Amino acid sequence: MVARVVDLRSDTVTKPSDAMRAAMAAADVDDDVLGADPTAQRFEAEMAALTGKEAALFVPSGTMANLICVLVHCDVRGSEVLLGDNSHIHVYENGGISTIGGVHPRTVANNPDGTMDLDKIVAAIRHKDGALYYPTTRLICLENTQANCGGKCLSAEYTDKVGEIAKSHGLKLHIDGARIFNASVALGVPVHRLVKAADSVSVCLSKGLGAPVGSVIVGSKAFIDKAKIVRKTLGGGMRQVGILCAAAYVAVRDTVGKLADDHRRAKALAEGLKKIKQFSVDLTSVETNMVFFDIVDSRISPDTLCQVLEKRNVLAMPASSKSVRFVLHYQISDSDVQYALTCVEKAVEEVLTGGYKVEHLANGTTKNYYGH
Amino acid sequence: MVARVVDLRSDTVTKPSDAMRAAMAAADVDDDVLGADPTAQRFEAEMAALTGKEAALFVPSGTMANLICVLVHCDVRGSEVLLGDNSHIHVYENGGISTIGGVHPRTVANNPDGTMDLDKIVAAIRHKDGALYYPTTRLICLENTQANCGGKCLSAEYTDKVGEIAKSHGLKLHIDGARIFNASVALGVPVHRLVKAADSVSVCLSKGLGAPVGSVIVGSKAFIDKAKIVRKTLGGGMRQVGILCAAAYVAVRDTVGKLADDHRRAKALAEGLKKIKQFSVDLTSVETNMVFFDIVDSRISPDTLCQVLEKRNVLAMPASSKSVRFVLHYQISDSDVQYALTCVEKAVEEVLTGGYKVEHLANGTTKNYYGH
Amino acid sequence: MVARVVDLRSDTVTKPSDAMRAAMAAADVDDDVLGADPTAQRFEAEMAALTGKEAALFVPSGTMANLICVLVHCDVRGSEVLLGDNSHIHVYENGGISTIGGVHPRTVANNPDGTMDLDKIVAAIRHKDGALYYPTTRLICLENTQANCGGKCLSAEYTDKVGEIAKSHGLKLHIDGARIFNASVALGVPVHRLVKAADSVSVCLSKGLGAPVGSVIVGSKAFIDKAKIVRKTLGGGMRQVGILCAAAYVAVRDTVGKLADDHRRAKALAEGLKKIKQFSVDLTSVETNMVFFDIVDSRISPDTLCQVLEKRNVLAMPASSKSVRFVLHYQISDSDVQYALTCVEKAVEEVLTGGYKVEHLANGTTKNYYGH
Amino acid sequence: MVARVVDLRSDTVTKPSDAMRAAMAAADVDDDVLGADPTAQRFEAEMAALTGKEAALFVPSGTMANLICVLVHCDVRGSEVLLGDNSHIHVYENGGISTIGGVHPRTVANNPDGTMDLDKIVAAIRHKDGALYYPTTRLICLENTQANCGGKCLSAEYTDKVGEIAKSHGLKLHIDGARIFNASVALGVPVHRLVKAADSVSVCLSKGLGAPVGSVIVGSKAFIDKAKIVRKTLGGGMRQVGILCAAAYVAVRDTVGKLADDHRRAKALAEGLKKIKQFSVDLTSVETNMVFFDIVDSRISPDTLCQVLEKRNVLAMPASSKSVRFVLHYQISDSDVQYALTCVEKAVEEVLTGGYKVEHLANGTTKNYYGH
Repeated sequence: MVARVVDLRSDTVTKPSDAMRAAMAAADVDDDVLGADPTAQRFEAEMAALTGKEAALFVPSGTMANLICVLVHCDVRGSEVLLGDNSHIHVYENGGISTIGGVHPRTVANNPDGTMDLDKIVAAIRHKDGALYYPTTRLICLENTQANCGGKCLSAEYTDKVGEIAKSHGLKLHIDGARIFNASVALGVPVHRLVKAADSVSVCLSKGLGAPVGSVIVGSKAFIDKAKIVRKTLGGGMRQVGILCAAAYVAVRDTVGKLADDHRRAKALAEGLKKIKQFSVDLTSVETNMVFFDIVDSRISPDTLCQVLEKRNVLAMPASSKSVRFVLHYQISDSDVQYALTCVEKAVEEVLTGGYKVEHLANGTTKNYYGH
Repeated sequence: MVARVVDLRSDTVTKPSDAMRAAMAAADVDDDVLGADPTAQRFEAEMAALTGKEAALFVPSGTMANLICVLVHCDVRGSEVLLGDNSHIHVYENGGISTIGGVHPRTVANNPDGTMDLDKIVAAIRHKDGALYYPTTRLICLENTQANCGGKCLSAEYTDKVGEIAKSHGLKLHIDGARIFNASVALGVPVHRLVKAADSVSVCLSKGLGAPVGSVIVGSKAFIDKAKIVRKTLGGGMRQVGILCAAAYVAVRDTVGKLADDHRRAKALAEGLKKIKQFSVDLTSVETNMVFFDIVDSRISPDTLCQVLEKRNVLAMPASSKSVRFVLHYQISDSDVQYALTCVEKAVEEVLTGGYKVEHLANGTTKNYYGH
Repeated sequence: MVARVVDLRSDTVTKPSDAMRAAMAAADVDDDVLGADPTAQRFEAEMAALTGKEAALFVPSGTMANLICVLVHCDVRGSEVLLGDNSHIHVYENGGISTIGGVHPRTVANNPDGTMDLDKIVAAIRHKDGALYYPTTRLICLENTQANCGGKCLSAEYTDKVGEIAKSHGLKLHIDGARIFNASVALGVPVHRLVKAADSVSVCLSKGLGAPVGSVIVGSKAFIDKAKIVRKTLGGGMRQVGILCAAAYVAVRDTVGKLADDHRRAKALAEGLKKIKQFSVDLTSVETNMVFFDIVDSRISPDTLCQVLEKRNVLAMPASSKSVRFVLHYQISDSDVQYALTCVEKAVEEVLTGGYKVEHLANGTTKNYYGH
Repeated sequence: MVARVVDLRSDTVTKPSDAMRAAMAAADVDDDVLGADPTAQRFEAEMAALTGKEAALFVPSGTMANLICVLVHCDVRGSEVLLGDNSHIHVYENGGISTIGGVHPRTVANNPDGTMDLDKIVAAIRHKDGALYYPTTRLICLENTQANCGGKCLSAEYTDKVGEIAKSHGLKLHIDGARIFNASVALGVPVHRLVKAADSVSVCLSKGLGAPVGSVIVGSKAFIDKAKIVRKTLGGGMRQVGILCAAAYVAVRDTVGKLADDHRRAKALAEGLKKIKQFSVDLTSVETNMVFFDIVDSRISPDTLCQVLEKRNVLAMPASSKSVRFVLHYQISDSDVQYALTCVEKAVEEVLTGGYKVEHLANGTTKNYYGH
């Protein structure tokens, strides 16, 4: 018998469903680098339609999706991008836009709700105007939902306002929409409306949607044509990629309807955690499929709690030196949530009574948490 | 009824076999970015063993495989790499090592057999030694088989000698082994012997081996640890990638044994082409699965020939302004070769008699040929 | 008769003194790129001694000085630097460390006194430790005095503490000491003590010190050896550069003793400005040779004020949409300060009464102010 | 008494003349970064006029001049430059266009006369045209005179033809004119005619012209506006740079007329060397101020010869493992040439008879020769 595992580390951990596996086994494929894979083309066309953009491009990961978009918009040397100081691109993507792309990042503070103040965005924009000292701002990046802010949603209205700022200053707007479907479901607003103001969007297929591999970039046809070249340069062009697109197609078809359940379960989990007096949980912060909570009892470190939980096959990751993150996804049931809560209660007790044994991490740090 | 198509454009065009599809459908997978995918790990271990290296890493493409290897070996700013002027990395990978990686390429002439003269390699190496004018050579790249030289094989002895040069100068040796299994079969020498002197090797799984997607990098454990970081930076980290590794596993298992047939068919095709008096074919140049031939009748351009052939569902690509390339792979049978030859003969006649109608390429150029 | 001009735009505007001109005319020079210029070598040795470091290197500008230092410390791809969000390197140097050097900047908030909170610095440091998502922090940058914070000084004690953090985490510490001599004079602490904890320091010679051209980098001999290569790569290697070093030598010899007067005059200027009721001046913020003041009367914009002043040959630059910056230097006398104050008073009156005519800037923006 | 030194290492070693020193001492200067230095502006205007271009920009070195020009022309990521495999930019400038600028170099073979075959240039040009595999060629670089080819001149006609190729393919043409005045004098063709087809030219002031420091870039006004930004990014913006421009002005005024003497003396030197039977000298190869000769007696290495010569205060540099380079300049007289010849004869004898003692270079290599 396989032991029950409740994997709350991230929504990237889902296993392909039977329907996805069947679709992969049956996919009609050809060499996509030669522009010939019918399944990839069909899937891309569908994603373009869903997001209200002209064209789409399948890529191996969300990191590459964002990297390509920033590099296409900032294709001229000396470009600066404005983005949130808590954004995934800035904090968790190896600084690739600088270290690989030579793009200069300038951060604007993310509010707890994931927004950046509009006046701060405007103040940070820099045009050359004859000055010799500044990079030229060419791009603003938003993230929806904003993972590092607890999976908060950006409204269509807020996004539109940032889009207007971008447009009026001749800048482009990119949305890291790794979890844009979660935002859509939580807000009750279609994805195409949420990204209407964006020149490009990256959408992750292997997070909440449950596809095994991949993200998709959407934008204008001219943008996607340039993105194809950058994808090839980075090594993201794949041959019979229709295999992966077939699974992603099923993911979009079957899983979007289940995201509301993930959000409901996230709230239930948060409510259960709130009853544990060693934790501090802000219920209003749970807008989508993520639960962040603080541990207010100094005897319990996030690392220790996660390691004790792991012994009970409940997997989670520290989010900071005093907080833990649980992420829901379609392979976590109501029953799994209850089981996880029971395990957390027991783990807290175990830590407080010393009834556990944890191998300390070699590097003795709790600083570097996983980013997804 | 589906029309017969003989696709000789590249060995990247193969469709997954039933066994590969079944393997993908059944693969045991997990989040490989979190280091947890058992199928990926098993496949990587196998590839490491096959190539005689400590560790391996699955990546989305051959371009990324080479890019990662060059970037890991040349991780210090101011690095120079020595490579063949006809090498795939230099000519067909978007210049990514420079444009993305900031590595300075210095070329050494490739001989018709794919080698570079050893003394030219030695003469091109540059150490700082207190001089301020030079980048520092840190890497030599070989390519085996060398696609742009007709798929020629580099012997183990030659590779060893280059490895000795590298070692004695404190440099690393990378082998672009996109088609190293073709070289192994043609030479009758195991892959691990051919790459013994290399610090890293990239092996393509989706060319002659027939996997739908992917390449693998092999090297020391320390090297692969660094390669993982670069892969993540480029966006090549994929989640349930075991799906693709499962297919690649079958490809390695089932297809390596068939490469000798590809080589035999390439020779047969070359012999057939040689009989056409408008062509010039060097039979001795056909060592593996590629046939390059010159058109010596100025009334026939490679572009035109390929377009006329395409009307008969025989697909091929020009290799230069006067030559054409045919690439064999395991989904081309003896009968396909005969059919292709018949079509070529007819196409030549058609072109000479004007009995065809070809839409001219918009850009009016025959210069930019496909690179694989 | 030449009209009196009081140039308060920056301390970069000084003209070479007669002594500097004489020194340049007489300098014993040779090819410094070949390592043979005696005057350059003597000057570099002197600057190394003054700053308590092993070696020094003359470079054409402060921007190059900082760029070289960051590039040497962050010579491995994937490096991150921690620096103040108001630092000159981050805000006013074209983002060169990213756009040219591929280094990822991560900012820490500058306090009004120019410091960054030590705990924020520590929290921002990122080691790989097996994680794949982060660049590796390799460098912390301080700026002393901190221009964008009003020319505030960092104490030796504060710098030491940052140095200890850097050391304990295996990082390097660079000080942008463009105006380190101003800090030294204001604090009454020798330069070598102020930079004791630093692995490298850039010192500007053409700001308060009054040399016509150049900055100097100081650090260990090994560091300077690497800096020479980067200088050559950037194109900062100059031939008979002893000419410029001869002037810089005189600047250091003659001008350091006058910096205290600049500071005294800055205070006098600030006190005079404080009496103008349309301005808000924080006297305690004037620590060195810079005076920043806010205009609290919305009828007067910094742009307009500076343009009206320019008609009276008093030159200054806006520092933000509501503030103006005056910078003192050794070619501004007590009498110049009084003259400038009189002109400012008249200009204010002129603006308020409409008795002026200003051509509006073509780009209609007051956002992009000069950075030095 | 100062010993007589005949410095033939390079034409970069000249000392400023009395007129240059006087000009520097008297120069009317201001802050050039603020666009206010009258002497710099006057000099730049003059160089623009001399070269027949709209605008000019003074920069610290020839390396920076070339780097800026390549970066301006190739400001879009994914650019490729075509240049000679023996060109200074490719071989002797630290690979900065790649390692700092991310530009991909593609070399075309330099003929012994410094040209590249026109058909090879055309064949190497790559447009995207929908292909995904290639960088986009955006620039062709020529070098006149071509140092590594013995200081050979490119004719106006040849340059025009390359310019036509560039234009017809939508590319730019840059000329590394470090010694373009030597070419002009040798060919009897004005500089503006030689560079008529070029979009940008770098002209070195501190080589044959004898200025202490600097190069100048010329091109269209729009080009120079962009070049100013790149100069600032690299750190090449200098404050009271009129000092250096004043000397450069004198250099251009006083030295151009003396270049013909340098060329005459180079020929005399070559004729003298030809009489030494251990040397092989091609007199026809001496077109300008450089003499390269081979040592055909295996008992004499270039390193050894140069070291023995150095003991007699005749300075020279090896050019390869069997050749030596002498460079003439306006501070080498007819008498110096005769003295040098006498010393060379004695040195040869000394080496052959063993009557010398040389400390061997630590690194035991003769491979890394100076590049200027």
